[in-house]
Amino acid sequence: MPQDSTFRAGRRSLFRHAAALAAAGGAGGAADVLAAEANTLTPSPDASLPVPPSMRTPGSPVGARRYGEPSAFEGGVVRNVPPNLPQYISASSRTPLQDLDGIITPNGLFYERHHAGIPAIDPATHRLALHGLVKRPLVFTVDELRRFPSESRIHFLECAGNPSYKKPFGKTASDIMGLVSCAEWTGVPLKTLLDEAGLLPGARWVVAEGADASGMTRSIPLDKCLDDALIVYSQNGERLRPEQGYPVRLLLPGFEGNMSVKWLRRLKVVDAPVQSREETAKYTDLLPDGTARQFTFYMDAKSIITAPSGGQRIGRPGFVEIRGIAWSGRGRIERVDVSVDGGRNWSAAALQAPVLSRALTCFRFPWQWDGRPAVIQSRAVDETGYVQPTFTELLGARGENSFYHNNSVQPWRVAADGEVSNANA
Amino acid sequence: MPQDSTFRAGRRSLFRHAAALAAAGGAGGAADVLAAEANTLTPSPDASLPVPPSMRTPGSPVGARRYGEPSAFEGGVVRNVPPNLPQYISASSRTPLQDLDGIITPNGLFYERHHAGIPAIDPATHRLALHGLVKRPLVFTVDELRRFPSESRIHFLECAGNPSYKKPFGKTASDIMGLVSCAEWTGVPLKTLLDEAGLLPGARWVVAEGADASGMTRSIPLDKCLDDALIVYSQNGERLRPEQGYPVRLLLPGFEGNMSVKWLRRLKVVDAPVQSREETAKYTDLLPDGTARQFTFYMDAKSIITAPSGGQRIGRPGFVEIRGIAWSGRGRIERVDVSVDGGRNWSAAALQAPVLSRALTCFRFPWQWDGRPAVIQSRAVDETGYVQPTFTELLGARGENSFYHNNSVQPWRVAADGEVSNANA
Repeated sequence: MPQDSTFRAGRRSLFRHAAALAAAGGAGGAADVLAAEANTLTPSPDASLPVPPSMRTPGSPVGARRYGEPSAFEGGVVRNVPPNLPQYISASSRTPLQDLDGIITPNGLFYERHHAGIPAIDPATHRLALHGLVKRPLVFTVDELRRFPSESRIHFLECAGNPSYKKPFGKTASDIMGLVSCAEWTGVPLKTLLDEAGLLPGARWVVAEGADASGMTRSIPLDKCLDDALIVYSQNGERLRPEQGYPVRLLLPGFEGNMSVKWLRRLKVVDAPVQSREETAKYTDLLPDGTARQFTFYMDAKSIITAPSGGQRIGRPGFVEIRGIAWSGRGRIERVDVSVDGGRNWSAAALQAPVLSRALTCFRFPWQWDGRPAVIQSRAVDETGYVQPTFTELLGARGENSFYHNNSVQPWRVAADGEVSNANA
Repeated sequence: MPQDSTFRAGRRSLFRHAAALAAAGGAGGAADVLAAEANTLTPSPDASLPVPPSMRTPGSPVGARRYGEPSAFEGGVVRNVPPNLPQYISASSRTPLQDLDGIITPNGLFYERHHAGIPAIDPATHRLALHGLVKRPLVFTVDELRRFPSESRIHFLECAGNPSYKKPFGKTASDIMGLVSCAEWTGVPLKTLLDEAGLLPGARWVVAEGADASGMTRSIPLDKCLDDALIVYSQNGERLRPEQGYPVRLLLPGFEGNMSVKWLRRLKVVDAPVQSREETAKYTDLLPDGTARQFTFYMDAKSIITAPSGGQRIGRPGFVEIRGIAWSGRGRIERVDVSVDGGRNWSAAALQAPVLSRALTCFRFPWQWDGRPAVIQSRAVDETGYVQPTFTELLGARGENSFYHNNSVQPWRVAADGEVSNANA
């Protein structure tokens, strides 16, 4: 086979040079933040790089998986499902934040929160009704929705109870704050549908209802519906997954996740909120004076260090890139500060472009760990100037009776042996 | 169960109003581009929205799939594998472009091109050697690579033979141009590793070698390696898929895909290209005078209308949003022009933000189809001012003997019955 012989000639000539590598090595190294690493990188001894089995035998054929899957070596990177719940119909699974990089969450690892399980809905029979205070009530098929002018935007989604309002228990970043994910969403602006139906005088709110067995129902201010609300049918390129609302969901960028109603079947334009269960008994916060914070909507600025984070171990003193994610329901992340001394001193981290409104933003901070115990944490600042609070500050503002909307700073303890654990636990 | 009764009260009250909807309806409609749609949307008769089965029975529990999968109703959206090839070890599968939205390709649908199949490589034993004209040859484990300062960037990857250099056959956008995909990649800049090793005088090129059975080998100009080349370990958040180079690949943004060597095991700094098989016998273009275009590297600006596209059908005359993707290896897309009259007149399409360098960019163009036969096509212009050529223009510049690097305009024929087909076929 001529292709092989041509190739092998090339490979042999490279290997002759490579043999010299085992004899090379030596000290030296860069004078930057990596200097401390120099003597930990491997200048030899397996540098002769023996031909591995993967080069001796052809691999699996193209198309063995028409829809691809992760490597078997990554089998542990799955959604984090709480063990021993009484039921899993109204429950959640968390994104393994500590295993991920970047701002896009793959659809297979996007967090889930269902109030009555995941329905299986045939897109051919699904309908979305738009009615109430409109001139022309309408019913849309999924195909009809796809014919409208479309938009694509990258936005995070986050559960209002991420984490629950107490000093977060749990070991890993996922345990504590894994009810947040980010994707590129495509759909039709809700404004377009409302324009098509025509609003009547008195229209102030829109009630969204899901086609799941909980009939998830939330009231949404009309201003949001006319601003950046999307009726979404695709996520990260492909059609929505069943657990994300297939075939159609609402997306309210920056609002608490449960309002982005999945399996969307109905939008009713009304003059006042309907006070549904999910906006009265749930997703509200009891204040010390006995009143409730209701209709808070926006998720305030938040951040978390995902590496190194709880359950991970820093292998040795020296250079450590502290990595994490930050986000705000109110717009772009302006700055992320990092402290490596228990909160006494803070320094600005680098933000990875693109920094998008209401999307995850990656931050990175170079740290020279001296091998002594430390507490590391991050603090997000958004474009409105809002600063992510400590849990103590949050308690001072809201008291101890809340359950949702905890956006406090998450500290990690680094032990002398490099083990990282939840400093709140 | 108090939760249910609370909820049902809310739902009943909504349904009372909804009953009026069946009696509503009527004409009217917006005066914008959607006007032609107005009488095709459904003002009634199933507007009473009977309670579907999905609302009567709880759905599947959380965590039934620890790693999620698409809906069974989307089972046809898979990678496009050519039928009846003599072998599938050196072959490719294509992204189903016509079924996707946005700029992110989900990892399960990312196009594949392998030269000797997909190896299964244990990241614990994998090594990357960096040697040749460097002061300090180095061998990296995957964990060591992950400790270096990281970057995340959204970039397309495209096969040099997408499509092959002839009037493209094939029926669908995927058949013709499905060897392009786009993802968010995370890794360590190659410049960082080269700085760590220290370049010696005479260093001009870097030879990259894969650990697959083809030992895929390409020579890369040092300038590119010091510019935006990444050693990648994650794609769309999670670790690379096996078919994308797990555990480590090279990424050369904007360069032809085969140079972004997968399963990367070796980088050798040299003074001149090694003239490997894949840069001499392959991935070069034979010109009319018998010489070859070699080391062309950058993928020139290209675009394709993905909806409506070959194999799809426009249901009826009226508003049609023409949608597509554009990209350029040389930077950002500056403009996409669309023609709906066989190339006589062109108008600028809207570009979806963010418009990123060397990434897919979505374009959209509102069209009022009058129901008569038409030819529609798109033409990309990048930030260098380069304009995507017609196939005739490409033939004029390069002659008829080329095989790779066809970036010509793809026209679609729309028949009077709405059927869309390849106008080149």
